[in-house]
Amino acid sequence: MAMLRRSVLVLVSLLLVGLGSLRADEGMWLLDQLEILPWKQMQKRGLKLKPEDIRRMSKAVVILDGGTAEFVSPNGLLLTNHHVAFGALQRVSTVEHNYIEEGFYAPTRADEIPVPGYSALVLQYYRDVTGRMLAGLSEDMDPQERFKTLERREKEIEDELENSGTGIRASVVSMYSGLKYYLFVYKEYKDVRLVYAPPRSIGEYGGDIDNWMWPRHTGDFSFVRVYMSPQGEPADYSEDNVPYQPDYFFPISNQGAQENGFTFILGYPGRTYRYRSSHAIDYSVNLYYPERLRQFKLLIQILEDLSKESEDYAIKLSGFIKGLNNVLKNNQGMLDGFRRLKLLDKKKQMEEQFREFLKAHSELNAQYGTVLDEIGELYKQQYATARKDLWLGILRFVRLPSLVYTAYRFEKEMQKPKEQRDPDFDEKQIQRLIRRTRYSARQYVREADRRIMAAVLKELTSLPADQQPRLVQEILKRYPDASPEEAVTRYVDELFSKSSIKTLEDALGLFDRPLNELSQSNDPMLEYARLVYPDFEEQRQQNEAFAAKINQLRSRYIRALFAWKGEKLYPDANRTIRFTYGDVRGYRPRDAVLYLPRTTLSGVVEKHTGQEPFNAPAKLLDLARSKDYGAYMDPALKDVPVNFLHTTDITGGNSGSPVLNGKGELIGCAFDGNYEAITSDYQFDPEITRTISVDSRYILFVLDKFSNARELLNELHIVGKEVSGTGE
Amino acid sequence: MAMLRRSVLVLVSLLLVGLGSLRADEGMWLLDQLEILPWKQMQKRGLKLKPEDIRRMSKAVVILDGGTAEFVSPNGLLLTNHHVAFGALQRVSTVEHNYIEEGFYAPTRADEIPVPGYSALVLQYYRDVTGRMLAGLSEDMDPQERFKTLERREKEIEDELENSGTGIRASVVSMYSGLKYYLFVYKEYKDVRLVYAPPRSIGEYGGDIDNWMWPRHTGDFSFVRVYMSPQGEPADYSEDNVPYQPDYFFPISNQGAQENGFTFILGYPGRTYRYRSSHAIDYSVNLYYPERLRQFKLLIQILEDLSKESEDYAIKLSGFIKGLNNVLKNNQGMLDGFRRLKLLDKKKQMEEQFREFLKAHSELNAQYGTVLDEIGELYKQQYATARKDLWLGILRFVRLPSLVYTAYRFEKEMQKPKEQRDPDFDEKQIQRLIRRTRYSARQYVREADRRIMAAVLKELTSLPADQQPRLVQEILKRYPDASPEEAVTRYVDELFSKSSIKTLEDALGLFDRPLNELSQSNDPMLEYARLVYPDFEEQRQQNEAFAAKINQLRSRYIRALFAWKGEKLYPDANRTIRFTYGDVRGYRPRDAVLYLPRTTLSGVVEKHTGQEPFNAPAKLLDLARSKDYGAYMDPALKDVPVNFLHTTDITGGNSGSPVLNGKGELIGCAFDGNYEAITSDYQFDPEITRTISVDSRYILFVLDKFSNARELLNELHIVGKEVSGTGE
Repeated sequence: MAMLRRSVLVLVSLLLVGLGSLRADEGMWLLDQLEILPWKQMQKRGLKLKPEDIRRMSKAVVILDGGTAEFVSPNGLLLTNHHVAFGALQRVSTVEHNYIEEGFYAPTRADEIPVPGYSALVLQYYRDVTGRMLAGLSEDMDPQERFKTLERREKEIEDELENSGTGIRASVVSMYSGLKYYLFVYKEYKDVRLVYAPPRSIGEYGGDIDNWMWPRHTGDFSFVRVYMSPQGEPADYSEDNVPYQPDYFFPISNQGAQENGFTFILGYPGRTYRYRSSHAIDYSVNLYYPERLRQFKLLIQILEDLSKESEDYAIKLSGFIKGLNNVLKNNQGMLDGFRRLKLLDKKKQMEEQFREFLKAHSELNAQYGTVLDEIGELYKQQYATARKDLWLGILRFVRLPSLVYTAYRFEKEMQKPKEQRDPDFDEKQIQRLIRRTRYSARQYVREADRRIMAAVLKELTSLPADQQPRLVQEILKRYPDASPEEAVTRYVDELFSKSSIKTLEDALGLFDRPLNELSQSNDPMLEYARLVYPDFEEQRQQNEAFAAKINQLRSRYIRALFAWKGEKLYPDANRTIRFTYGDVRGYRPRDAVLYLPRTTLSGVVEKHTGQEPFNAPAKLLDLARSKDYGAYMDPALKDVPVNFLHTTDITGGNSGSPVLNGKGELIGCAFDGNYEAITSDYQFDPEITRTISVDSRYILFVLDKFSNARELLNELHIVGKEVSGTGE
Repeated sequence: MAMLRRSVLVLVSLLLVGLGSLRADEGMWLLDQLEILPWKQMQKRGLKLKPEDIRRMSKAVVILDGGTAEFVSPNGLLLTNHHVAFGALQRVSTVEHNYIEEGFYAPTRADEIPVPGYSALVLQYYRDVTGRMLAGLSEDMDPQERFKTLERREKEIEDELENSGTGIRASVVSMYSGLKYYLFVYKEYKDVRLVYAPPRSIGEYGGDIDNWMWPRHTGDFSFVRVYMSPQGEPADYSEDNVPYQPDYFFPISNQGAQENGFTFILGYPGRTYRYRSSHAIDYSVNLYYPERLRQFKLLIQILEDLSKESEDYAIKLSGFIKGLNNVLKNNQGMLDGFRRLKLLDKKKQMEEQFREFLKAHSELNAQYGTVLDEIGELYKQQYATARKDLWLGILRFVRLPSLVYTAYRFEKEMQKPKEQRDPDFDEKQIQRLIRRTRYSARQYVREADRRIMAAVLKELTSLPADQQPRLVQEILKRYPDASPEEAVTRYVDELFSKSSIKTLEDALGLFDRPLNELSQSNDPMLEYARLVYPDFEEQRQQNEAFAAKINQLRSRYIRALFAWKGEKLYPDANRTIRFTYGDVRGYRPRDAVLYLPRTTLSGVVEKHTGQEPFNAPAKLLDLARSKDYGAYMDPALKDVPVNFLHTTDITGGNSGSPVLNGKGELIGCAFDGNYEAITSDYQFDPEITRTISVDSRYILFVLDKFSNARELLNELHIVGKEVSGTGE
C-alpha cells in the first residue's frame, strides 16, 4: 500500500514537472493562420473543431470598451468581465443605487440601464492590404518620409470606409512591425445596456491585493446587451431600438474547466513585444525601468511629505499618490521579472544562434547580417539622451505649467496649415482636455507643482552641460552667481509667485487667446511655455525619427526571423482578433510549491476576513457553509470551482474573452495573467505563463444560487450534463 | 496519453487530499509508553526497530542549552542546530574572528574552542516517583498547602540525588498536570567545545523572514564535542579532559529523507498545552492575546515616536523595538491561528462529547461531572482581574523603577527565614541580574521609562475604582484636583525629576544597602517601590493560588479524559525525552496550493538576492550552478535536497533533534515547525502540522563540497549507498 502510493506519487511528480516542457502553447494567432497550427496534436488534446468553425465563432467575439466580450444569446447578450463593465457600473450608479457595491440585475429588458459612452465593436471582415499600403515604397527611402506616407495611406483607407456607411469603424494595422498591413472593419454599436453584475464583493473579491495573484477567487464577470435600430443598423440609444442579433453566440457549459482539459480563447489582445531585440530589453532593464523607479519614488516622496503637512493636501493628493504607487509596483514587478527570468541573457543567446544561422547562409547574411547591430546603434542614440528625455517627460506631471504650455502649443499648431498639424491637437481633443481638467481641479495642489518642478529641474542641472535642455541652460544663465540648485529654486519661486496664472481655471482661459497675445505676454508661466517649447519640439521630432527608423529595422529583423524560423510566426498583439490555445494546468511558482489549477468556493470562505477586499457577502458564505452547491459542484473537487489556470497566451485587452473547450462550449471568462509571468508581453515562458479565468460553473452558481437570476439563466444556452431541480 | 495522464492525476490528487486523514501522527510519547503505540502499522510504514532499540538509541540524545543534540561519533561529537549553537558561536567569536559570519571548522581537537557556560545533559535513567510524591496527599486538602508540599518533596528528591555525586542533575517533573511524577537523572558535562558551524549565510539562510515558513532553505546544523575528565566523569573545562564516550551514537544516512518515508524523532520538547479546556482557550483568544497585542503596540508606538526624536534614542532603542516586534508578530500569529483554526469551537465540541460521555456513565459523572465548570469558575476570577494584572505586568518593562523595586524586594526577602524566601531571590540570581543590567546599560533611555510608565498608569486609571491597584489609588489621592491623566503625568514627572536615582548604576548601588535605609529613604523612586510592593505581592500570591487550584483541577480533568479515551494519552511536553513518529509529507496551506515536502539547492539559488538574509555564499552558488552535487543528489529531485517536511509532533526544545528513518539512521536534524500550525502547542492538526528538518545530505554536502571538512566527515559513520570519489 505504502509502496504503491509512493510509486504513483513519484510517477505523478515526474509528470507534473515534465508537463510544462511537453509543448509550448505560445502564440496569439491571426484567424487566417489557423491552418499552420499543429491541428492533429490539438485534436489529440481534445479539440473537436475545424478552422472554419473557429472563424465562424469569432463573429461572437467583440471589442467592448478596453476589453473583449462575447455573445451568449441570440438577443445580443454579452458576457464580459466585471472589471471591463466597471466603468459602466460607475456611470449608471446614482446616490440611491450604488451598483458597484450592490451589484445589478435587470430581470426584464425594461429594467436594463443604458450605458452612455459605451460601445461594442462587431467585426464585419478583415483583409490583407499590404499591397496597397506598401505600393511604390522602397526600403531605401528616407525613413521619416516613408513613415508619413504610411500614416497618410492608413488614414485614406480608413476614411474611405468610414464614410461608406453609418457606424462603420475601420482600422488599418501593421503586422510584424510593418511587414504586413491588415484592414479590420467593424460596426460600432453605441446602445449598450447593463443587464447583470455581481456585487463588488464577488466581482472584485481580493481587489488589488489578489490582482495578478494565484490562488484567485474573483467572480470577475458581468452581462450587458447590445441594441440596434429597428432597421438592424448601429444606432445611438433609443427606446425604439431592438436587441442585436449576432451571427453566432456561445453555449455555456455547466461542466466548466477540467484538469488538463483543452481550452482555447478568441479575443482582442492589446500589445506584446515578443520580437524585440536584446538592445530593447537592455534599454528597459538597465535604463528605462530603473530610472522610472527613481522618478516615481522621488515624486511619491515629495507628495507624501506634502501630505504630512496638511490634512487638506493629504486628501487632495491621495489619488495621485495611489496612482503613482500602482505604476511603481507594476514597474518594479516588471524589472524584477526581467531579472528573475534573465530575459536579457535569453535574448542574447537567441540572437547568438540567429547570427550563427545567418553566417551559415551567405545570401541571408548579406541581407540581414547587420540588422541587429543597426538596431543597437539606434538604441545607443536613445541611451545618450535618455535621462534628459525621461526627466523632461516628468515636467508633464507639473499640472499648471504643463497646461499653460499646452495652451501655447495649441495656438502654435492652429497657425499651421491643417495637414501639417499634430492630429492630437484638434478642437475635439482640446475640449476633452478642458473637461478632464475641470473635473479634477478639486485635487489640484499648487505647492505640489512647485516642489516637483524644482526637483525635476535640479535633476536636469546634474546632466552634462551639452545634454541640458535649453530651459535649464537659460535658468543657469539667468542667475550667474547662484549655484545650479539655488538658480533652480529662485527660478521656480519666481515662476509661481510672480505669475498671475494661479489656478487651472486661469490656465484654461488661455485656450481662447490668440497666439500673439500668448507670445508677447510677460507672465512667467507663458515665458516658461515659450522657453520649454523648443525642448519639447526637439524631443517630439527625435521620437518620430526614432519610431520611423526602428520600425523599418524591426520589420527587416522579423523578415530575417521568418527566413530563420519558417513561416510559423504569429504577429505581436495589436488589438486585433486572435486565437490562442492550451490546457488547464497549474505551475510551480518556486521551489517546493505547486499551484493547483483550480480554486473553490471553500477558498472564498478561507480568504474571507470581513475586511475589504476580502469581504464576501453573507449569503455567499451561507451557501458555501451549507454546501448548497446546486448543480455546480465539481465531482473531483467536491466543491464549486471558482477560477482556473490554463496555458493560453493572452494579454491586456483579452479581458472578458471567452474560454472554450474542445467542442467550442464556453467554460470560462478570462480575466488576468499571473504575477510570475508579468513579463510575458516580452517573452512567453511555457513553464510559468498562465491565463486566469473564472469557471462557467461559478458564473452559473452565482446567477442561480446567489442572485436567483431566473430570466437571465433562461436566456443562456446551457449545455453539458442534464440538470434537474436547480430551479426554485 | 492525455487520458492516462488525467486519470493518474485525479487518482493522485485524491491521494494527496486524503493522505492527511489516513492517520494522525499526533503525540510526544514517553519512552515507557512505546509498547502502547500501533507498532504493526508503524512497521508497515517502514519502521524496522523494536521498542528496546529505540530506548537504547535515546542514550545518544542529550539536552544542549535550550535545544536537543545527538551523538554522531564514538568520541562525543554532537550534531545540533546552528541556532542552538548560536549562543556558543557568539561567545567564542572575537574581533579577529567572527565565527557567526564566517563559520568555523576545527580539523583537529586542538583547534576546537571551549564554550564557557555551555553544558550537555546526558540522561542516566528515569523512573516513576508518583508514589513518593503523592504519599499521604488527598485531593480534598487545601490546594495551596498541597502545592507547597509537592514543591518541597520535589526539591528533597532532587537534592538527595544531586548531592550523591558530582555533575548529577536531577529533575522531578509532573506528568498530566500532576497525575504522575517522574524523576529524570542526568549527568551534566560542562566541557563542550565548538567543532563546526557553517557560515550564517548557510546556517541562518532566510533569517527572520523565513522563520516558521515553508518552503525553507536553511542549513540549520552545527557540531560540538563533549569532553569528560580522564576518569570518565563530568568536569569543568580542562586541557586534560578527553572526549566523552557515549553509550550510543547515530550513523548518518547519505540517502536522506524520501517522500512518504517513515521518520521518527527523539528529543526534548519544551512545553505543550494539549489538554487545556475551552475556558483556557477562551481566555487566550478573547482576553490574553488581544490585550497583549494592544500593550505591545502601545509600547512600540511610544518607542518609535521617541526614536524619531533623536538618532541617539533610535540607536539605543532599536534592539528593544525589534524584540517587541518579534513578540508582537508571534502573538498576532498565535491569535490568527486560534481564530483561523477555530480552536475554541473545536474544544467546545470536544467538551460537549465529553459531557455526553459522562452523562452516560453515572459513576464517572459523579466524580468528574463538574470539573470543567470548576475550571470555568477559576477562569472567571482570572478574567475579573486580568486587565489589572496584565498592565501591572508591563510596569516591569520600566527599567529604572523596576530595578529599584527589585532591590527593595531583595532586601525584604533577605529579612525572611531562609525556607520562606522566594527561591528566585538568592544571591546568585541577583549577581546574574546585576551583570545583565550592566551589560545592557548602554541601551538605557530614561525618557522611554518615563513615557511607558505614564502610559501604563493612565491605562490603570481607566479601570473601575475597585480594581485599581493601590499605587494608582494613592496617586489619584495625592492630586485631588487633577484629572486622572494629569495626576499620573504629575506623579511620573516628579518621580523622574526629583529622584536622585538617575541611572541604572545608581539603582544597582541599592542592592548593597540595608532594608531600613531603603524603607526610610525619601527618594521618590524608593517610595514608588514601597507603594507598588503590596500590589505586586498580592498579585504574586494570587498567581500562586491560581496555579495550585488549576493544577489540581487539570489533573482531575485529565484523569477523566483517561476514563473517556483509554490509557493511550501522552503527557504534555515538559522538557523530558519523547518519541514521536510520522512520515515525510507536504500539505495544502490554502486553497489550490500544495507544498511539496522537499526543497532543493536550486531553491537556495532561486531565493538568493545578495541581500541579508538571502545572501548565499558565492562558493555555494557556484556549486549549485555547476551542479557539483557530489554524492548528495536525490535521484527523483535531480538536485541536492535541503529541507524537508514531516508529520512528526514537536515543539520548541526539540530543536536539533535527530530525525531517523525506519532503520534508525539519521536522515535529518529537526529545526522548526510551520506557520500554519503555529498553534500546534495547543492542538495538533494532522492536516497541517509539520516538522521542518534539514536533510542529512545537505549536511554532508556542505561539509564535503563547501567546507571540505575531511576530518569531520571521516569521524562520522556514514551509511546508505556506497559512495566513491567524493574525496578531493
